Amino acid sequence: MKDVDGIFLRNSWYVAALGQELIDGHKVARTILERPVVIYRGTSGRVVALDDRCCHRAAPLSMGRIEGDDIRCMYHGMKFEPGGKCIQIPGQDAIPAKLGVRSYPVVERYNMVFIWTGDPEKADPSLIVDYPPLADPSWRGLPGYMHYKANWLLIVDNLSDFAHLAFVHTNTLGGSEEYAYKTKPVAIEKLDDGFRVERWHLDADPPPYHRKVIPNKTDRIDRRNIGRMLIPGIFLLDSMFAPAGQGAEKGVAVPGTRQYRNAQFMTPETRSSTHFFWNYLHDYDLDNPNIAISLRHSLEEGFNEDKDIIEAQQRVLDEDPNYPLLAIGADAPLTYFRWLMARKLEAEKTAARAA
Amino acid sequence: MKDVDGIFLRNSWYVAALGQELIDGHKVARTILERPVVIYRGTSGRVVALDDRCCHRAAPLSMGRIEGDDIRCMYHGMKFEPGGKCIQIPGQDAIPAKLGVRSYPVVERYNMVFIWTGDPEKADPSLIVDYPPLADPSWRGLPGYMHYKANWLLIVDNLSDFAHLAFVHTNTLGGSEEYAYKTKPVAIEKLDDGFRVERWHLDADPPPYHRKVIPNKTDRIDRRNIGRMLIPGIFLLDSMFAPAGQGAEKGVAVPGTRQYRNAQFMTPETRSSTHFFWNYLHDYDLDNPNIAISLRHSLEEGFNEDKDIIEAQQRVLDEDPNYPLLAIGADAPLTYFRWLMARKLEAEKTAARAA
Amino acid sequence: MKDVDGIFLRNSWYVAALGQELIDGHKVARTILERPVVIYRGTSGRVVALDDRCCHRAAPLSMGRIEGDDIRCMYHGMKFEPGGKCIQIPGQDAIPAKLGVRSYPVVERYNMVFIWTGDPEKADPSLIVDYPPLADPSWRGLPGYMHYKANWLLIVDNLSDFAHLAFVHTNTLGGSEEYAYKTKPVAIEKLDDGFRVERWHLDADPPPYHRKVIPNKTDRIDRRNIGRMLIPGIFLLDSMFAPAGQGAEKGVAVPGTRQYRNAQFMTPETRSSTHFFWNYLHDYDLDNPNIAISLRHSLEEGFNEDKDIIEAQQRVLDEDPNYPLLAIGADAPLTYFRWLMARKLEAEKTAARAA
Repeated sequence: MKDVDGIFLRNSWYVAALGQELIDGHKVARTILERPVVIYRGTSGRVVALDDRCCHRAAPLSMGRIEGDDIRCMYHGMKFEPGGKCIQIPGQDAIPAKLGVRSYPVVERYNMVFIWTGDPEKADPSLIVDYPPLADPSWRGLPGYMHYKANWLLIVDNLSDFAHLAFVHTNTLGGSEEYAYKTKPVAIEKLDDGFRVERWHLDADPPPYHRKVIPNKTDRIDRRNIGRMLIPGIFLLDSMFAPAGQGAEKGVAVPGTRQYRNAQFMTPETRSSTHFFWNYLHDYDLDNPNIAISLRHSLEEGFNEDKDIIEAQQRVLDEDPNYPLLAIGADAPLTYFRWLMARKLEAEKTAARAA
Repeated sequence: MKDVDGIFLRNSWYVAALGQELIDGHKVARTILERPVVIYRGTSGRVVALDDRCCHRAAPLSMGRIEGDDIRCMYHGMKFEPGGKCIQIPGQDAIPAKLGVRSYPVVERYNMVFIWTGDPEKADPSLIVDYPPLADPSWRGLPGYMHYKANWLLIVDNLSDFAHLAFVHTNTLGGSEEYAYKTKPVAIEKLDDGFRVERWHLDADPPPYHRKVIPNKTDRIDRRNIGRMLIPGIFLLDSMFAPAGQGAEKGVAVPGTRQYRNAQFMTPETRSSTHFFWNYLHDYDLDNPNIAISLRHSLEEGFNEDKDIIEAQQRVLDEDPNYPLLAIGADAPLTYFRWLMARKLEAEKTAARAA
Repeated sequence: MKDVDGIFLRNSWYVAALGQELIDGHKVARTILERPVVIYRGTSGRVVALDDRCCHRAAPLSMGRIEGDDIRCMYHGMKFEPGGKCIQIPGQDAIPAKLGVRSYPVVERYNMVFIWTGDPEKADPSLIVDYPPLADPSWRGLPGYMHYKANWLLIVDNLSDFAHLAFVHTNTLGGSEEYAYKTKPVAIEKLDDGFRVERWHLDADPPPYHRKVIPNKTDRIDRRNIGRMLIPGIFLLDSMFAPAGQGAEKGVAVPGTRQYRNAQFMTPETRSSTHFFWNYLHDYDLDNPNIAISLRHSLEEGFNEDKDIIEAQQRVLDEDPNYPLLAIGADAPLTYFRWLMARKLEAEKTAARAA
């Protein structure tokens, strides 16, 4: 098992699980970047991630038993501590020093588990993406998980051009086809680790998902989306809905404005399937839990629209991997992101060869 | 995407859909000779067949929306006219001249859609098979469709030796095992584009499917089948059931004779699966719609018997593609047809290389 | 189709079916060592095993019809005798002498059908494993069959280290985790065709499956297992449960002792799937049929526990065929068996090359 393979950016943090998946001693068996991993919370509260294969006869440790912070393979009873070292072989006194399984660095943050599948020496927690709303009680949301039968970059592409809101999400997240014709990114900024796009839609009807959770259903709004797409596949979206025509686009702080913060994490399961973690946070009526529930449902509905078309894309490309894709003007951000990704992969390979 | 590949005869017409599949704006997404195609009827009535992949990001156009005779991809909203040219990109004014998808020549005939996946220059409608009963109101039938998980030539083989009626269809289309022992092709004629076989069964019980639709269930009949199998996989069967012993086999026009005309079209989906279109027409009691319905059900029952054994063959051959098949005397027609097919494929390749 | 392939030991007998599977004219279609076989009992009582592919067009003979001891392909009606020779072609008088399908030597013994897929000349019935309890009326059992999606050697491995009883079968066949810690093989004997292991567990609670069928549920027992694993994958287990503390381990014939005899046959279906046949016999209360029924259910419950973990192993190894397995002390028998298997395979190949 190599730390670098040229397909995935390994020296990077990925979301591996939601905190809520690890309650009650539940073990998560999940393939991350084509590696089988078992994730569990030990009795001490510590989260552990190990190669999900016993080093003895390859039985999955996820079929095993948590004992304190350790886990015991329930085939022949070998026991492993959080670092992966084998610490017991029933019926055998001496344990070879090297016997064990790979342990992966993990960090709990934002009520999620981040994992590092690259060189453990480089697993610096400060490299984890900083998105304060996820840890700020003045924002409220309900996190979600979806599985895609598609390469993670197809989801990145999807999020890189919001014109798709007009056609894929007309009746959910978009609101009308007008969004594609009347709005354009006002700014596309290339970042060292991704890109930033800002897009305004002035004097519009509120889109259906927003209309569902506001009292005044018909007042027109000025809508602003600022999206950032970051390596290796993290999308952060700051959305604002201001009462229309009061100068929000000129920086006026318009009373009655409602805001959203959205984080989406694409973690490759394999090169053709993806774990998708997300949270959609709102900044108003925080005492009303139904708003977060409604938004969670609306977003899920919208993401399922994406999933339909993205998985269809994957099937088309599986049938004909050499089918040429022709870029249009709106593809500048995705083209830049894929170029950046290729450069970072190359850098990782070069560094690995040098080491 | 090449016009010639040496596996399929591309410069040939194939049935792609039944007319009845295109009503109410329904889009047919169907793989034809290993190419994904979307077929629809535009508002003007014109039938359109396009590559079922948007040229932009490979989303299926069959998930799109028909607008007049055009179709719009519902991912980012690009619109294509029947010739495949992109005529609109929402949010972008200039459209590159070459932007578009492949359009396939189609012809509507016999209430079916014929498609041409080879060189469009050679798509001459006069090459479509001529079988007048399909367009003649003195014949009545109900067309059908089935999907086979088998190479189309295995279905061709099946239809090339009617001895199988005795064993596969004893209780449906055949009638008795006697058919295999007492009858033989009286004539096998090699054609430039296939073969013709004539087979008589004198003084026989009417087979079950025929008995169901005639008033006199027990009168014995003289049964004649004349089958033609044509490149690339079209089977035309003229069947006659005459009251027995009155000289039908000598050319006497016996009163009370009932006739059938049957057309079967094998269109490769892939090299190991097939679209099967068919119509079974009768020439009597045309005012009674139940006859066509009964025959449709009976034939479907019989074809499912074929499907069981042909798909089993395919599975055997998938497991061991080199399993040798040993010919018997009755295989002369299928052997000739496969030889003819190989020769035509070779000719197509040679012509393509020369061009 | 070669008689030797270096993957399976072909010059060896394998269980192909239970006698009870062939009642009422039932045809068993089963892949044995990657060869499709149809097995049936002819009218005379003779068991026949033929290649399950008609030599004409590869239709499965298992879709055919038994006629006496012969079988007729129900595609075009060709008929084959038990030796595989074609003896009838409907509509054709002369039958080529070589026309036919492969026939496999079979022997009925112990109410099972043994098959030989190697060189027919070497198919000596005296090579069939000798295990008298299977034919002895003083032992009673109910045979069973299971299908594994796993290479047969993973099942051999499983049976080669009884420490797994403690963890996989705690509540069924094992009884407690103590079995792994307190017991060790007292003797491991290398045989020319496998190995023999003896293991004692003194002063133990009776394991659940045994407790269910004995009147006295709580009396402690001395438990002895003597297992023999034989090439190519036959496991024979002699088990004894004696009242504890009366010297059973010193050879004393303790009154009230109950014994079991267990035969398990692993027959490769493919290199990654296995047919598993077994019988678990008891030597007491032979007039009570419920004991055999209870044991059959208990063993099936236990084998399903094995199946869960073994099929999980296979999936792990399918994902990463080069995943290294690290041996522990208890692996000596399985290591020896795999070495023996490799040597026998090599010998078979060498002999085939010389011939």
